[in-house]
Amino acid sequence: MPGTLHLPLGPGGEFDAIAAALARWGPLADGVGDDCAVLDVPSGERLVMSLDTALEDVHFRRGWLTPEEIGYRATMAAISDLAAMGATPLGVAAAMTLPDAWRENFLLLCDGIGEAARVAGTRIVGGDLTRGAALSLSVTVLGHAAAPMSRRGARAGDALWVTGRLGGPLMALRAWERGLVPRSDCRERFAHPVARLDEARWLVAHGATAGMDVSDGVVSEVGHLAAAGHVRIVIDLDLLPVLAGVSVEDAARSGEEYELVVTAPESLDVSAFEDRFGIPLTRIGVVEARPAAAAALETRRHGERVDPPRGHDHFADA
Amino acid sequence: MPGTLHLPLGPGGEFDAIAAALARWGPLADGVGDDCAVLDVPSGERLVMSLDTALEDVHFRRGWLTPEEIGYRATMAAISDLAAMGATPLGVAAAMTLPDAWRENFLLLCDGIGEAARVAGTRIVGGDLTRGAALSLSVTVLGHAAAPMSRRGARAGDALWVTGRLGGPLMALRAWERGLVPRSDCRERFAHPVARLDEARWLVAHGATAGMDVSDGVVSEVGHLAAAGHVRIVIDLDLLPVLAGVSVEDAARSGEEYELVVTAPESLDVSAFEDRFGIPLTRIGVVEARPAAAAALETRRHGERVDPPRGHDHFADA
Repeated sequence: MPGTLHLPLGPGGEFDAIAAALARWGPLADGVGDDCAVLDVPSGERLVMSLDTALEDVHFRRGWLTPEEIGYRATMAAISDLAAMGATPLGVAAAMTLPDAWRENFLLLCDGIGEAARVAGTRIVGGDLTRGAALSLSVTVLGHAAAPMSRRGARAGDALWVTGRLGGPLMALRAWERGLVPRSDCRERFAHPVARLDEARWLVAHGATAGMDVSDGVVSEVGHLAAAGHVRIVIDLDLLPVLAGVSVEDAARSGEEYELVVTAPESLDVSAFEDRFGIPLTRIGVVEARPAAAAALETRRHGERVDPPRGHDHFADA
Repeated sequence: MPGTLHLPLGPGGEFDAIAAALARWGPLADGVGDDCAVLDVPSGERLVMSLDTALEDVHFRRGWLTPEEIGYRATMAAISDLAAMGATPLGVAAAMTLPDAWRENFLLLCDGIGEAARVAGTRIVGGDLTRGAALSLSVTVLGHAAAPMSRRGARAGDALWVTGRLGGPLMALRAWERGLVPRSDCRERFAHPVARLDEARWLVAHGATAGMDVSDGVVSEVGHLAAAGHVRIVIDLDLLPVLAGVSVEDAARSGEEYELVVTAPESLDVSAFEDRFGIPLTRIGVVEARPAAAAALETRRHGERVDPPRGHDHFADA
């Protein structure tokens, strides 16, 4: 039974909290009781690891999401980094810092973490709980992949593809920031993202050369793919798959989508993908060789070159 | 070049911070630029992982340690969990939350993290930086081991062994909490612990059956070994290796030592260990079969049974 939870909440409390969290997680938690979790990477595959922090009033506000949603979203956002590598999850571990006012919500946060692990088909293999002034969830994810998809492999002649429909999370954020209630479909996209793990492995198996998950806005991510691959990528904003009622510009800059943006052959079988996964796969641009003087990223709208829509920095001045 | 640093410090600042940290770390950082770090577990070995959070005013106070020491200590404390498993480090990743007042110390924190990685013979493979109200460092460590040492293997007939000399960290804490300046050797034990990685592998190779690192006080850890192994362990407190001037009772309860306590055969070659590593290896008790009615842990002093000295809960009421 590998796994570890350090819970220095004060005498007594930590063991009660461990026991309660484990009871809540049931078989989703792969045990507790050693200094480290012990896991196995399949022979011939590589280990991939990432970590991602969600901090109250930086990444979310308390009134926007339920405690379960905060736990779910922080965990799924971290798992999405595994999807971005075409990896299969091995396990997640959450370092939680909890203000006293949040102690009553501890098990609800755990429920959300457990739900994200369940949806992603993985387990909770460790954690750490500390009492502190602000709620913070720092989630470490481990996975394995025979050939991890990197940001760097884009090739001239590839097409640029994106999964899903964009814009929901930005619409939800904008509503909350104005004190409004978000549209339910936009709220759902923000509160319950789903890491595109199976979709990523399908794309890798069908020739994807590079990819990322959309955490900062699709145009911003494509800029990274172009720079890392030393190629030029031209995005046709008219082709962006947008959620109903969302403008193309907002879809282009909406972050925390946790959709995938990949470079892959023009010949991808879109119908096979969409039949299998039930979400759109959309060709939104092309990869070209990059002349020395040319910009790595070009965005077009109605056939004309336009400035790339900038990302949305919520809390930039918080 | 695997590795990832998410640094949402606001437009511009995050990239500058990434670049500055990487320049500072040099070859200690194994690159940045993908969604996940990619690592290899040697064929036939198992992956071990742990995470550990150091939070200002919970685990330390600002005036006690320099920024470098805060970074070093948080990182080395996490690495010590790998030593507790007899594992070899693969890499470390630090999720940092930084108050604005700490921004000028960011690179000094990075220096300390880098120094801990260097001392442990490992690399920085990822990270995450967030702006927040309180300084927090949550360090994830990855390692590998052919046969990880667990807490559960103690066998009747084993002896109980501990590395190093105990008591320094508690003396340092007690001085700080009274507004005094700690003795330099005690301060050094608190500020610059060294994970006993090589020592742990030696002990595993020489038959150690179970072990932990001393993070909460040696008596408390031995209680975990006895419970996990379903054995009875008798500690002779008179045998505890104490730092000069420290009482046996304080040495017994001093935490954050990051020494090792293991169960292993009576026949361990103490001279060979001490010659090789330059620190003491001391036999402090015995492992016995546990009769149904007997306590799992017994502590003796001057040949008499005494109550186990309790751990020191600093900030228990913070």
